[in-house]
Amino acid sequence: MYNYKITVSYDGRDFSGWQRQENGIAVQEVLEGAIGQVLGHPITIFGSGRTDAGVHALGQVASFFSTSLRTPTQLIRGSNSLLPDSIALLAVELMPEDFNARFSATGKKYSYDYLVSPTRLPLLNWRSWWVGPKLAWDKGSKCLSHLVGEKDFSTFRSTGSPTKSNVRKIFSATLSSPEVNIMRLELVGSGFLRHMARAIAGSLYEVGRGRIDPNDFPSIIAKGDRKLAGFAAPAKGLCLREVYYHPISENNL
Amino acid sequence: MYNYKITVSYDGRDFSGWQRQENGIAVQEVLEGAIGQVLGHPITIFGSGRTDAGVHALGQVASFFSTSLRTPTQLIRGSNSLLPDSIALLAVELMPEDFNARFSATGKKYSYDYLVSPTRLPLLNWRSWWVGPKLAWDKGSKCLSHLVGEKDFSTFRSTGSPTKSNVRKIFSATLSSPEVNIMRLELVGSGFLRHMARAIAGSLYEVGRGRIDPNDFPSIIAKGDRKLAGFAAPAKGLCLREVYYHPISENNL
Repeated sequence: MYNYKITVSYDGRDFSGWQRQENGIAVQEVLEGAIGQVLGHPITIFGSGRTDAGVHALGQVASFFSTSLRTPTQLIRGSNSLLPDSIALLAVELMPEDFNARFSATGKKYSYDYLVSPTRLPLLNWRSWWVGPKLAWDKGSKCLSHLVGEKDFSTFRSTGSPTKSNVRKIFSATLSSPEVNIMRLELVGSGFLRHMARAIAGSLYEVGRGRIDPNDFPSIIAKGDRKLAGFAAPAKGLCLREVYYHPISENNL
Repeated sequence: MYNYKITVSYDGRDFSGWQRQENGIAVQEVLEGAIGQVLGHPITIFGSGRTDAGVHALGQVASFFSTSLRTPTQLIRGSNSLLPDSIALLAVELMPEDFNARFSATGKKYSYDYLVSPTRLPLLNWRSWWVGPKLAWDKGSKCLSHLVGEKDFSTFRSTGSPTKSNVRKIFSATLSSPEVNIMRLELVGSGFLRHMARAIAGSLYEVGRGRIDPNDFPSIIAKGDRKLAGFAAPAKGLCLREVYYHPISENNL
């Protein structure tokens, strides 16, 4: 059996999310169809984690087992010719048998893009959340250091999503403007609770518009009360940029 | 009567082009519907020119007459709340009665984006043409200066599109990489024949892959034979970036 690791990018607009749902088309099933056709047998793909409906990915990672051996180039070219424009395989690697895209992952990098132009911009607003030019980003920046560290992030956890532990480690949290009209929140963490990245993005929005005082941010995190934080920002602004499989420290991000 | 000038951006994917067609939804009619609703009466919009199905716009300009007076902010906010995510009004200006978005225009800037990454990238390939990393862009660059000037551009004119004259003036033609994985052709001209920008983009692709010798480029333009040039590159890579209404020279682009 060969254990394949694949890196995948997708435009989340067209899909009901990563995982198979009752309604809509999931990224996972489209990938399984195309790659299975190239390999000549049905496969089951395990993602590093789910992404919600509408969330984009620049570097989602998944793994699957197959009895068929293909070179990375064969698998990439064959699959990409079958996949819709909104999904593509970027890289393929053969891994030891114990590799698993989910359980071997050591961390993930998410970005959240706010669109800060005076009006909506159609070439950008499909992958960003239009919040206008008036938010006080200096206040948002003051909150970032409080997010970093190993903490209980229940404050940003979606209600109705039971997990064993709500403790996660955030390695870095930054706000910057990588291109005109875009303000980007970038979060690198050991893992993310359901809706956690979007709830942090929503909370920084509330800070920026003056609804949450940045001085209250540490206690809002400490109290673990979902109602104190901002709402989950729209899915379309979120992008899974990278999944890590090496020990992470602040020095190797 | 008030003569409104509007600047509009749209994601061309969702539309059959600027102008009303028998099939599909045109940008023009969606705009007329939304703006007409804000003004309280039906309007007819005149664009600076048509864009083909799938072509994007960052700064298309159009004009229309209305008996209703609205501030730019009223018209922008009202219309954008009614328009789909793929279209937005960016600016509104009241103009003298003799202004016409098409006939008053002095020039246009188009960009054509080639995607030069090893694989397709779904977050970019909706607005760019994936040509891979192997094209010889230095050869393409050698052709650019031959495009500049007042010339008969019949070579790049779509067959079956009769026009009085095929003479147009190109003020500037550049190739550059404004972002990772994107090579951008930018053309500023007094006007463009039907499919002209895409035929130039297709010809530079043929130069880059060695099918057209850059030394033959001047004679290919001079001969005016459509069959000598490259095919029209896919519409999705083209974007109307700006429409000019002032006298253009090389110094004020």
